Amino acid sequence: MKFPKAQTLQEIANLIEAEFVGSPDFPVLGMNEIHVVEEGDIVFVDHPKYYDKALESKATIVLINKRVDCPKGKALLISDDPFRDFNKLTLHFKPFESSNTSIAKTAEIGEGTIIQPNVFIGNHVKIGKNCLIHPNVSIYDHCVIGDNVTIHAGTVLGADAFYYKNRPDGFDKLISGGRIVIENNVDIGASCTIDRGVTGDTTIKEGAKLDNQIQIGHDTVIGKKCLIASHTGIAGCTIIEDEVTLWGQVGITSGVTIGKKAVILAQSGVSKSLEGGKTYFGSPAEEARAKMKEMASIRKVPFLLEKFKKNS
Amino acid sequence: MKFPKAQTLQEIANLIEAEFVGSPDFPVLGMNEIHVVEEGDIVFVDHPKYYDKALESKATIVLINKRVDCPKGKALLISDDPFRDFNKLTLHFKPFESSNTSIAKTAEIGEGTIIQPNVFIGNHVKIGKNCLIHPNVSIYDHCVIGDNVTIHAGTVLGADAFYYKNRPDGFDKLISGGRIVIENNVDIGASCTIDRGVTGDTTIKEGAKLDNQIQIGHDTVIGKKCLIASHTGIAGCTIIEDEVTLWGQVGITSGVTIGKKAVILAQSGVSKSLEGGKTYFGSPAEEARAKMKEMASIRKVPFLLEKFKKNS
Amino acid sequence: MKFPKAQTLQEIANLIEAEFVGSPDFPVLGMNEIHVVEEGDIVFVDHPKYYDKALESKATIVLINKRVDCPKGKALLISDDPFRDFNKLTLHFKPFESSNTSIAKTAEIGEGTIIQPNVFIGNHVKIGKNCLIHPNVSIYDHCVIGDNVTIHAGTVLGADAFYYKNRPDGFDKLISGGRIVIENNVDIGASCTIDRGVTGDTTIKEGAKLDNQIQIGHDTVIGKKCLIASHTGIAGCTIIEDEVTLWGQVGITSGVTIGKKAVILAQSGVSKSLEGGKTYFGSPAEEARAKMKEMASIRKVPFLLEKFKKNS
Repeated sequence: MKFPKAQTLQEIANLIEAEFVGSPDFPVLGMNEIHVVEEGDIVFVDHPKYYDKALESKATIVLINKRVDCPKGKALLISDDPFRDFNKLTLHFKPFESSNTSIAKTAEIGEGTIIQPNVFIGNHVKIGKNCLIHPNVSIYDHCVIGDNVTIHAGTVLGADAFYYKNRPDGFDKLISGGRIVIENNVDIGASCTIDRGVTGDTTIKEGAKLDNQIQIGHDTVIGKKCLIASHTGIAGCTIIEDEVTLWGQVGITSGVTIGKKAVILAQSGVSKSLEGGKTYFGSPAEEARAKMKEMASIRKVPFLLEKFKKNS
Repeated sequence: MKFPKAQTLQEIANLIEAEFVGSPDFPVLGMNEIHVVEEGDIVFVDHPKYYDKALESKATIVLINKRVDCPKGKALLISDDPFRDFNKLTLHFKPFESSNTSIAKTAEIGEGTIIQPNVFIGNHVKIGKNCLIHPNVSIYDHCVIGDNVTIHAGTVLGADAFYYKNRPDGFDKLISGGRIVIENNVDIGASCTIDRGVTGDTTIKEGAKLDNQIQIGHDTVIGKKCLIASHTGIAGCTIIEDEVTLWGQVGITSGVTIGKKAVILAQSGVSKSLEGGKTYFGSPAEEARAKMKEMASIRKVPFLLEKFKKNS
Repeated sequence: MKFPKAQTLQEIANLIEAEFVGSPDFPVLGMNEIHVVEEGDIVFVDHPKYYDKALESKATIVLINKRVDCPKGKALLISDDPFRDFNKLTLHFKPFESSNTSIAKTAEIGEGTIIQPNVFIGNHVKIGKNCLIHPNVSIYDHCVIGDNVTIHAGTVLGADAFYYKNRPDGFDKLISGGRIVIENNVDIGASCTIDRGVTGDTTIKEGAKLDNQIQIGHDTVIGKKCLIASHTGIAGCTIIEDEVTLWGQVGITSGVTIGKKAVILAQSGVSKSLEGGKTYFGSPAEEARAKMKEMASIRKVPFLLEKFKKNS
């Protein structure tokens, strides 16, 4: 997430009342989580275990809870609570704007696009040409939708990331300031939920087709021409490469990558990255052929037990 | 799907710019997919593997991509792309009509039926007497709902079938022109999604009761007095016979039949037809008693391994 | 569920045209299902198997289909169909009130609370301060929501319990007259469904955080600081104690208790109560460590089979 215009280190430090290491006019272009951070951005880190990762990342400014050595060409923001202060910055640069109308005046809607009744379209949303948005769809602020996209009734695009810090007095939410980007020729079924990125984008790439009641977490990427059947849930920060097929009720954990043209059979549960071009099944998912063999062998266990009784 | 009035072979051929085999005034009554086709209907076929099935089906007119011998009493429409031309016909006879009002003027709503706020009711929808439609429900065009039906908030009736042809340049959708038929005394929970038929009907028969967040695919039939718990997903073209019980998070593949009074326990996955009157469990689902025995035997495998170590 | 004011036994008997055993002016304070019944309440029982349980419960008045001995200090209502007559009472004291406006005039909404467009808020709903209710949310009558609560788009609070009596001529619904109570600092994701209690409350306690597409049945209690991932379904009358974590696509049956700080891994299926402080996995769920061991041992079955072939 880039700021509308570049800030100085001093300006950012003032916003969160933090000390800083670096020149007061050091430029700050945006802010991002570590997995999507770019040059010029702030990243935050509040656990010593991840200090090095943050300091060595592409981030140019590190919001940190210890006065460490500042890497060359970078700057530090020193805070007793980087998580809280990262949230402060998100709220400052992407404040929540309530809506008084079902379709915000700042929304841009392309030629030939049909918006059915009872749809909500938030502030600064962009929708391309020749789309069809069915009734009771909710599109939160800042979503970007391409051309020839169909979205069926009841679907929710852009709810907050499910991302909390466990504090002694309760869970503290990492505030979402990111977006959803839906590319051209995507179809999304009824009652799907796709969360916005925390600071980056949740992306559904060109030509992907989603059935009903699918859940896609924040910052996840669905590749081109993916086919996803109903009730499948994909957690945050996961990458589904192009032309992957996910059958019904599949679950995929956060942060993994499913390789190009992989097929995952119904009700499978994926807890690690999977190579492309293969078919998987089971919970946890394994290559389908091996899994089927395993399942066949299990059916012979009663026979093994019988044998043992006889032999001993 | 029947046409509003009978067409001639010549008229249909003109619409899709196809050649034909048969008398120009050969009557054409409707169009249907092969599993629901009736006399007088067009069926389409684009793969040699299925030519015979289509030509020998109840269909009277076959839309086909090869000039084959025409069966007696039938007619052919010759097209280089029957899938595309079948879609053209669907769009012609069931064009999408956008709505300017939340409740279409062409919708018929029976006496004593209560429509709560924020409900969408599409064109040509029929709703019987003494129904209760809760808020934010979306009912697409042409749905037919009986008497004493309750539909809870957020449910979507009539979204498109999830049915695509894989083309080199992207998935091509088979356009849905079918309906949903909900019989009397059905209850449907909150945030369910029931897709319309492609050319036929998706049917929920008398007295069936559905919990929340259930997904039912196109052309599927749910029998009388079925009881379906939440998060269950049933793919397209499946037949659930009368008085079947499906517990929570069950998944059922397309095209199968679940026999009368079958019970399928929670989280089971069904990939083939199942006989009625029995209880099933597991993914893939097996008879529950056998499955339980298998699961008990598995618990003894560590003991078997131990024995082996000693003996060898 | 308490009545707006105390009734007499005679008044209740008149409403349902039942005979009674006890003083005509015996006070009746409310009505409840057996698992939440309190002194002064009516409970109903229609199966001899449960007569003793009902007669010995905290209920002061027992609506029963047999003239049994009346326990001291209690009263009886004799009916040929207690289920039907319990429903009559629910309908009398909590009649369904249709709504003409999206936000009912009888709803109370606290200071600082933002209601986004297309939200439905039913009669007698109470919402606290500084809440954020996103678009297309449906909140049924009598729901009670605390302060600082966020509810994402498309969520449905207060649909009916999925609770039916199987009669020869069809399922007969137990009418819901209960409520939902959401405490302070709760976050609820998009397209969740939480059913109201039958006579009691479905409760989400302080600081619990729910992801998208979660289903929670009637009369269930979610403890403080629980964390629940998407597509998880919890049936009715279940108690999830404080600080429990449920990962994605978990299913939990009705009437069980999940102990404090338990963790249930993704796609697990829970069919019995589980002790707190432990981690569980599988369907049916077992302690994760034991389950993982079992799964590892299964992978050695083909080896066992091989050995057997050689030895015999």
